[in-house]
Amino acid sequence: MVYIGIDLGGTNIAVGVVDENGKILHKGSRPTLVERGYGPVIADMAAESLKVLGESGYTLDDVAAIGVGVPGVADPDTGRIPFCTNLAWHDVPFWAEFQQHINKPLYVENDATVAGLAESVSGISAGANSSVFLTLGTGLGGGIIIDGKPYSGHHHVGSELGHIIIEMDGELCTCGQRGCFERYGSATALIRDGRRALDHTPDSLIGQLCGGDPAKINAKIVIDAARQADPAATKVFRRYARSLAVGIVSIINFIDPQVVVLGGGVSLAGDFLLDAVKEALKPMVFFKSLPYADIKLAMLGPDAGIIGAAMLGR
Amino acid sequence: MVYIGIDLGGTNIAVGVVDENGKILHKGSRPTLVERGYGPVIADMAAESLKVLGESGYTLDDVAAIGVGVPGVADPDTGRIPFCTNLAWHDVPFWAEFQQHINKPLYVENDATVAGLAESVSGISAGANSSVFLTLGTGLGGGIIIDGKPYSGHHHVGSELGHIIIEMDGELCTCGQRGCFERYGSATALIRDGRRALDHTPDSLIGQLCGGDPAKINAKIVIDAARQADPAATKVFRRYARSLAVGIVSIINFIDPQVVVLGGGVSLAGDFLLDAVKEALKPMVFFKSLPYADIKLAMLGPDAGIIGAAMLGR
Repeated sequence: MVYIGIDLGGTNIAVGVVDENGKILHKGSRPTLVERGYGPVIADMAAESLKVLGESGYTLDDVAAIGVGVPGVADPDTGRIPFCTNLAWHDVPFWAEFQQHINKPLYVENDATVAGLAESVSGISAGANSSVFLTLGTGLGGGIIIDGKPYSGHHHVGSELGHIIIEMDGELCTCGQRGCFERYGSATALIRDGRRALDHTPDSLIGQLCGGDPAKINAKIVIDAARQADPAATKVFRRYARSLAVGIVSIINFIDPQVVVLGGGVSLAGDFLLDAVKEALKPMVFFKSLPYADIKLAMLGPDAGIIGAAMLGR
Repeated sequence: MVYIGIDLGGTNIAVGVVDENGKILHKGSRPTLVERGYGPVIADMAAESLKVLGESGYTLDDVAAIGVGVPGVADPDTGRIPFCTNLAWHDVPFWAEFQQHINKPLYVENDATVAGLAESVSGISAGANSSVFLTLGTGLGGGIIIDGKPYSGHHHVGSELGHIIIEMDGELCTCGQRGCFERYGSATALIRDGRRALDHTPDSLIGQLCGGDPAKINAKIVIDAARQADPAATKVFRRYARSLAVGIVSIINFIDPQVVVLGGGVSLAGDFLLDAVKEALKPMVFFKSLPYADIKLAMLGPDAGIIGAAMLGR
């Protein structure tokens, strides 16, 4: 049997046929075109699934289940999607709608949760019985895997790790609160602080790397400048790594997972980031002489969305 | 069958014979006398168990299991106790030692976890499939119950909810970190801020209630002054309730339990506290239109330690 995994993003619908070990056998994608509303988007998700399946040489009879990762909240019990903010979806009856096109067992979960599941099936946290996955991108998403299964809480509003508060009365968040982890641990935080640093230190290497245009500063530029030991960028990067460590120490002291996985764009900084986070974390953990979670870099990249979605039905 | 629950504290060893519904049938206690070291303390835990069991009319043959709540970290898999800071216990082979006295199935867990379990068996969170319990005392302890079972994480260092960080670079904590939830949500925080308030506002009602001696300020005095609308005490109390809400919103956005239970000394402030926390929490939750955890007051009081310990073996 095979599984179909659908990674629903604001830009693209990515679909893959995946085997039971989390290996992608064939994949494809088409644009989401959000502005059409949910009906045509869901029809296209089904159409792309059938297309990719056909190309893979399998038929619907070979498909055990279809899973979908969505950029928002999903209710895995009812298949309804209460919120996908950047798709402008509100209370979408996803199961009912999708099953008008393909009638197979259908699973739906938040995209960060799905990516965390992928890493725990065939990625860096494979074999771990519990893990927390952090996507360090424009926002900061979280996925919790306990006993090999995604955990999103009683009302399915959990694993919003970007919105645990690490600085009371701190930076204003898009959610309306202040001091959310996302405001300190996302790529957006690195960019904001990179711009502030360039403002205060106009001769910083950051200015050179962005061609003098602060609007062009991205996470990679700030990290590259820090790699080259630019003092202003190094200060920003160290503060960033320390903020990540503050969030991670809360994760460890709270649910003590076996592994914490760093994914998303910022994690492409690799060991330079990982080493800085681990160094900042070490003196912070509560029980200094007892073992605690390994911190690791995600390894599946963007495919994690397809793989994890497919594995929802495994 | 009955269960024996032992609540090991720094001052007393409390023991109860408990039925399978979490009802105490008979109980007793004796002083811990910590300074003797763990051997004699564990011998006394067994002796008190046999004494209370005898008085209850049951025999060892009626006992299905014995459970123990300890004020520190416990490894439920090996029965070793790596740390009980205020007992000065380090890496105590608890099972081996206790079973020299009574040979019955033996369970051991952190005391806040055990109290949370008690509330979820026969207390305020009975029937909930997941709950987080907070003891608001000298420190701030946490217990996590998922699917009716205590959850302390992969390395058994989790559920240390007093040490999730809610204010980066905030108040210095006894653990060496800054900004831990315990520094804002414990009775100690109310006392500290009550003293600071009296310092700045010598005519505050707090001064009257403590007889002019700041050393006599306790959580009840600060809360009583706030109840009587003393402005300085009200400010301290509101800040306290808001800090609790900040920690609770992190708990909700992280693992989204069905219920959050407030226990420990400060929770005796009752609805005055509960209402203030709920009011502060409401605008902070991430998904404002979706259901989230009920916040409730613990109902079992100090007996939770005995009941929860007994229920570990159920």
